Amino acid sequence: VSGAPRLVGDIGEDALLGRIVGRLPPPPEGEVWAGDDAAVLRAVGGDLLFTTDALVEGVDFSWSWCSGGDVGWKAMAVNASDIAAMAGRPRHALATLALPATTPVAVVDAVVDGLVEAADAAGIALVGGDISGARELSLGVALLGSSGPHGVVTRSGNRVGDAICVTGHVGGAAGGLSVLRSGLVPADDVLSGGPAEPAPNPALRRLVARQLRPRARTAEGPLLAALGATSMIDVSDGLLLDLVRLMTAAGHGCRVEPGLVPIDPDLSELSGALVAGGDLVALAVGGGEDFELLFTIDASRVDAARSGLAAHAQVTQIGVVTADGLRFGDEDIERMEGLGWEHLRRR
Amino acid sequence: VSGAPRLVGDIGEDALLGRIVGRLPPPPEGEVWAGDDAAVLRAVGGDLLFTTDALVEGVDFSWSWCSGGDVGWKAMAVNASDIAAMAGRPRHALATLALPATTPVAVVDAVVDGLVEAADAAGIALVGGDISGARELSLGVALLGSSGPHGVVTRSGNRVGDAICVTGHVGGAAGGLSVLRSGLVPADDVLSGGPAEPAPNPALRRLVARQLRPRARTAEGPLLAALGATSMIDVSDGLLLDLVRLMTAAGHGCRVEPGLVPIDPDLSELSGALVAGGDLVALAVGGGEDFELLFTIDASRVDAARSGLAAHAQVTQIGVVTADGLRFGDEDIERMEGLGWEHLRRR
Repeated sequence: VSGAPRLVGDIGEDALLGRIVGRLPPPPEGEVWAGDDAAVLRAVGGDLLFTTDALVEGVDFSWSWCSGGDVGWKAMAVNASDIAAMAGRPRHALATLALPATTPVAVVDAVVDGLVEAADAAGIALVGGDISGARELSLGVALLGSSGPHGVVTRSGNRVGDAICVTGHVGGAAGGLSVLRSGLVPADDVLSGGPAEPAPNPALRRLVARQLRPRARTAEGPLLAALGATSMIDVSDGLLLDLVRLMTAAGHGCRVEPGLVPIDPDLSELSGALVAGGDLVALAVGGGEDFELLFTIDASRVDAARSGLAAHAQVTQIGVVTADGLRFGDEDIERMEGLGWEHLRRR
Repeated sequence: VSGAPRLVGDIGEDALLGRIVGRLPPPPEGEVWAGDDAAVLRAVGGDLLFTTDALVEGVDFSWSWCSGGDVGWKAMAVNASDIAAMAGRPRHALATLALPATTPVAVVDAVVDGLVEAADAAGIALVGGDISGARELSLGVALLGSSGPHGVVTRSGNRVGDAICVTGHVGGAAGGLSVLRSGLVPADDVLSGGPAEPAPNPALRRLVARQLRPRARTAEGPLLAALGATSMIDVSDGLLLDLVRLMTAAGHGCRVEPGLVPIDPDLSELSGALVAGGDLVALAVGGGEDFELLFTIDASRVDAARSGLAAHAQVTQIGVVTADGLRFGDEDIERMEGLGWEHLRRR
């Protein structure tokens, strides 16, 4: 027995599948999860919500700064966030894992554990999936949810005069990415408080967690539907880019005040080191991956939204819906450069 | 304006998404398809069926022998086949496309058209998806279906003494792959009857179509539930490998007669050229991707199944379910080499 790690190519597809299924919870009576041609799920009331999103090695993450567990967690969380942004409840997920035969089995175990951990945190059951060979690892999740008692909140329902609000803070995930890419702090050390001495700065650790272990606003989404949100999107590709999507879905414009954007306090604290003379606001509104909810609501109901969400997240009004023009302070958003994440950049 | 093809990296993600959405049909009143955080679908009766499967460049296909349209078609068809194998009706699909920025836009158009074409053929609506950058192209589909009036047929319901039957013929897709890999006939020429002179042999053309444009048995699956099938799987990874999965799901064995396996007549016709002294039966039972339905049924109901499916496909009994042992003629199936498709082979 050598000390070399076992690789997925050594154990083969069916053994790997068996191993993965063994890490999943068992289905309730009357349902079939992994192990057949398709999962069988009892229908629940309401409309169905259906979304999918994938993470690709070298594009969405790098093994130099994250673990298999982080990749699994995030792939599940970003999909849960999409269902939350419809004001729905996420329920059942399938995972598609494409990976090189040279991947250590332990990495696959960690990916699956990360998927299940994030699924548990969001009330989701991982009910199956698919494995395929590939040159680089990618992890896709397809997620099924159901609408809540107050229905879905789409992107297109905003009205001129509505307040534009955002939950929590933005910029933290982008700050965490800067920390990780700097290579100064290995990801494992940061999150575990591992071998680094002295223990990493807590603000730095929180930023890294925002990047690696984002939390979907699964409680807040349905609450905001009950509170009267007229349109909603999650901040995945950058506050301004997602704002433009929200406004153009309704054919409207906006006026947003840069000074009102709730910048992550940890990012502000570390701005000297992370932004290095650059623009903190630009990082916060362009960075993406905060998975906060950006929503519109009648201006008279902002206080109600604020108190209704008080136990979960702060709510900040950053602007107002207008008939046309996309304004961020003095700037025209559509003329700003490097607005947000572009998945198809040439490499 | 140069003659170079436009690449997806030139037009960017949002423009590419807009282009794709423009190729999809519009949703019915009350549903939201592409363009929001998740698709919103009206629930239908019955249990939900949920499956996913992906095709990866270099593993599942090669651009040297197939087109974007072929990849799109097949990614949809293989998922439809999984729902058919549960005796369900496929309904709504999401596609996940990961691709290099250097991919020509025309290839993406063709992939989407292939997806939609296969979706139409199977009664499926493609309701959205996700795009990501990657080093190689991969196309995943997540498919949602519903159970029919006779419920689902899982893998595990077979009983000792049941007849083991298969629809249609096997081996054609493997034969088609041999034709394509031989490089003697470019795929486009074969399917279009293109520039090759004289026109390619019709048997050869049909084999290539079996590989590139498989048809899911979406009508036959629900019919077989009505006719009393006790367990079912689709032949995706090879008849014998899928047979083993069907038997072991129930803790049973089987006795299958090699001489009864319905080998694709086109494969038989061309066996001299394609198998070249090799074993035709081995190719037919090991090759996979035929997407026929392999099912079990009470021995007294084989004739009913045969006549019930007569308008769609032939039904052939190839063996019987036993208490234990997996026999293929004189051989123990578990000791046979190269049983079927393994996605995690080292490259």
